Amino acid sequence: MSQDSTERIIEGLRAWISTAPPGSRVPSNRALTAQYGASPVTVQKAMRRLAALDLVESRPGVGTFVRAARAARPVDYGWQTAALGAPQARIGALSSTQRSATPDAIGMHSGYPAVELLPERLVRQALARAARTESAVTRSPAAGIPELQAWFASELASAAPAGVTPASSRDALVISGSQSGLSSIFRALVGPGRPLLVESPTYWGAMLAAEQAGVRLVPIPTGDGGPDPAEVERAFARTGARAFYAQPTYANPTGASWSRDTGVAVLDIVRAHGAFLIEDDWAHDLAIDGDARPVSALDDDGHAIHLRSLTKSVSPALRVAAVIARGPARERILADRAAESMYVSGLLQTAALDVVTQPGWRTHLRGFREQLRERRDLLLESLAVHAPHAAVEIVPRGGLNLWARLPDGSDVEAVVRECELRGLVISPGREWFPAEPSGPYVRLNYANADPSRFPEAAAILDAVLAAS
Amino acid sequence: MSQDSTERIIEGLRAWISTAPPGSRVPSNRALTAQYGASPVTVQKAMRRLAALDLVESRPGVGTFVRAARAARPVDYGWQTAALGAPQARIGALSSTQRSATPDAIGMHSGYPAVELLPERLVRQALARAARTESAVTRSPAAGIPELQAWFASELASAAPAGVTPASSRDALVISGSQSGLSSIFRALVGPGRPLLVESPTYWGAMLAAEQAGVRLVPIPTGDGGPDPAEVERAFARTGARAFYAQPTYANPTGASWSRDTGVAVLDIVRAHGAFLIEDDWAHDLAIDGDARPVSALDDDGHAIHLRSLTKSVSPALRVAAVIARGPARERILADRAAESMYVSGLLQTAALDVVTQPGWRTHLRGFREQLRERRDLLLESLAVHAPHAAVEIVPRGGLNLWARLPDGSDVEAVVRECELRGLVISPGREWFPAEPSGPYVRLNYANADPSRFPEAAAILDAVLAAS
Repeated sequence: MSQDSTERIIEGLRAWISTAPPGSRVPSNRALTAQYGASPVTVQKAMRRLAALDLVESRPGVGTFVRAARAARPVDYGWQTAALGAPQARIGALSSTQRSATPDAIGMHSGYPAVELLPERLVRQALARAARTESAVTRSPAAGIPELQAWFASELASAAPAGVTPASSRDALVISGSQSGLSSIFRALVGPGRPLLVESPTYWGAMLAAEQAGVRLVPIPTGDGGPDPAEVERAFARTGARAFYAQPTYANPTGASWSRDTGVAVLDIVRAHGAFLIEDDWAHDLAIDGDARPVSALDDDGHAIHLRSLTKSVSPALRVAAVIARGPARERILADRAAESMYVSGLLQTAALDVVTQPGWRTHLRGFREQLRERRDLLLESLAVHAPHAAVEIVPRGGLNLWARLPDGSDVEAVVRECELRGLVISPGREWFPAEPSGPYVRLNYANADPSRFPEAAAILDAVLAAS
Repeated sequence: MSQDSTERIIEGLRAWISTAPPGSRVPSNRALTAQYGASPVTVQKAMRRLAALDLVESRPGVGTFVRAARAARPVDYGWQTAALGAPQARIGALSSTQRSATPDAIGMHSGYPAVELLPERLVRQALARAARTESAVTRSPAAGIPELQAWFASELASAAPAGVTPASSRDALVISGSQSGLSSIFRALVGPGRPLLVESPTYWGAMLAAEQAGVRLVPIPTGDGGPDPAEVERAFARTGARAFYAQPTYANPTGASWSRDTGVAVLDIVRAHGAFLIEDDWAHDLAIDGDARPVSALDDDGHAIHLRSLTKSVSPALRVAAVIARGPARERILADRAAESMYVSGLLQTAALDVVTQPGWRTHLRGFREQLRERRDLLLESLAVHAPHAAVEIVPRGGLNLWARLPDGSDVEAVVRECELRGLVISPGREWFPAEPSGPYVRLNYANADPSRFPEAAAILDAVLAAS
């Protein structure tokens, strides 16, 4: 009887499937139970048989669907080549930082801290609270929710010395992650074909956004303490650039921080050239020794554009950042954001504001600092002991990464590949250079992998260097 | 004693404020209570006095901050004019659809349905559940979470006729709202200076995104049933365009839907010209009579780019949409998205997927349909009875708006302004025309304002028309 029912359901569904378009949703088990007067177990049995016959496929949590016919004709999309033409920008391969590693590998390639370093409880509570507010069902203003604008502005203002008028709430534009901010800033303030000064090495995501905007990169060498102001002056004078993109604090990838004098000198040069300093304060919350002191806090003439993100310190799921800009530059950037995405989810903004205004946020930042310090020091020590040929020239005072120089002549790509085969995933330095790499570097993230495996990681790198 | 304490706190804080940078956060009331050994009431009193003295300002929910000195020097941002140059695109004034109306006005200008039409309970529950998942603290893949990709693909596949290979999960790219999709599609598939066919009138947000991308618009007149395929053919032949952006179903603003024959004919023309049909299926879930049947479901050669959003039917806070594209076009769009914003918050994706896979979602869509129907019919009737000179030429079979033609010679801007003075906010038709408006139109949203005020709204419009 149950066998008969199963067959009856299979037969009925096969007939239905033969006329249904592939991808159609199969009626739910509950509906079939009612339709065939059969037990749930019988219906489930029939569905398993249909799946085994490759007639349906089940997508957990979504439903069961008629499978696309295997005999689907092969399609030639060659016509698109003519329609699309050559790409404006080189189509970037995925950055090594975005690859997923096998679960048992030591992943030192990521651009993010490990989940256990995040204020997970604050984030979950804030999201649960935000889900009960109006922000869950309404749209937010193009410039952001005013309270979050005020918070971002006050954060920068708190670093402003006496005599400098701090940015106002209105100057802070809430955006969905700093990558969106970079894209908009480069489109709005630089534009296709025009020059943009960048440090070398610099953040690969910024180069990607600049490439998308058609901006021409002008690299300036940098190191601990920041770039030589004389080089910055020469580059402005030579190219007529009106903007300089930089990470003055805990730069990615090198970990370098500009000295206060360099910040002041560069800002003076930027002013003298009627230009913008685009300060990507990506690691503001990732301080280890001392605190982040944004160069932008020294400016009130609208020369500094400050970009601050919460993605790395709050949660990658809270895609919330801010651009602080004054004068017409603010309007130009806001117009670009509106055309690009209208507004940022108010729910994410509400949750982010909740997190950073909890008393627990300060506590979290203190703990975060200690964990980053321990991890940084442990990786430095592991490298010193187990991989003495990988030289870390800068001890970063914040951020997530060490920037290690391999012995001259090393084939960095080969070293990275061989490390990966041995279970250590790291990033080749090339991705952070706007031109040819100035040396054989690799970037090692100390904030993501299990620190108890740092000595093992260093030993793998050493063995690969020894064998190459 | 309490008086003394208050003075003591004020004195201490005044001294501190005199050295603190403006914008600094004042210690919390709790901290001050402890520091001064005073009662919370005393501390609050002191803070109120400091606020009255304009020395601090309190931002509810954020904290209290040292107020910026009133004597801040006026800043001249004129230097930015030279640095920025003329804007690439005209800097759009805010669309009338994005203004906020006074609370007692009848708001018929919005682009969104009223909150009470949204599946509010499903949204809040989904967000609360998502806050407990991994998606709250991890980043999601660039193309989206696979289950949501599968859902979007299956939705389009369910409309595919036999013999057409439906799009796969992989072809569906999750994006943060359809505006982002439009920007990326225009940048990736058209590019600066190249022509893009658009209907006239068409969605203002699409024109804004096209302008940002530097695309050249080629308008094609459209009406009920869609554009004349012969016009589409001529426009492709004349301009050499490789793409046509359209809203074939419940178009914004007209409410027009293409006939099936027009859809098939346009797709054939697009194929013959080796071009793309960019189908903005913005109102897929806003059907009233019949169901949305995307033209893209008829294509499996990669000529159709399908854009589907959940913002209007789920919640404006769940900025989740998808672009379905195949072949190199998919890669080109994905590369642009990655450069623009890396990835979409997985939390929002998880919550959106939760909503649309609940049994309550189907129930919601049925109720939504009935409410839209009632509102549409009530506004049609109100206009017919109370504003007979505002002619609605198309009864929309879905969407949120009526497109009303005012008497010839009407000064639309003046009518809109005068209506607003009398408490009715509507949008001038001009915003939806890529060139000069073809007639004196206004757009009336029936899904946002209180329907019991529709007769009043029609009467206001009538009175304004009579007086003008």
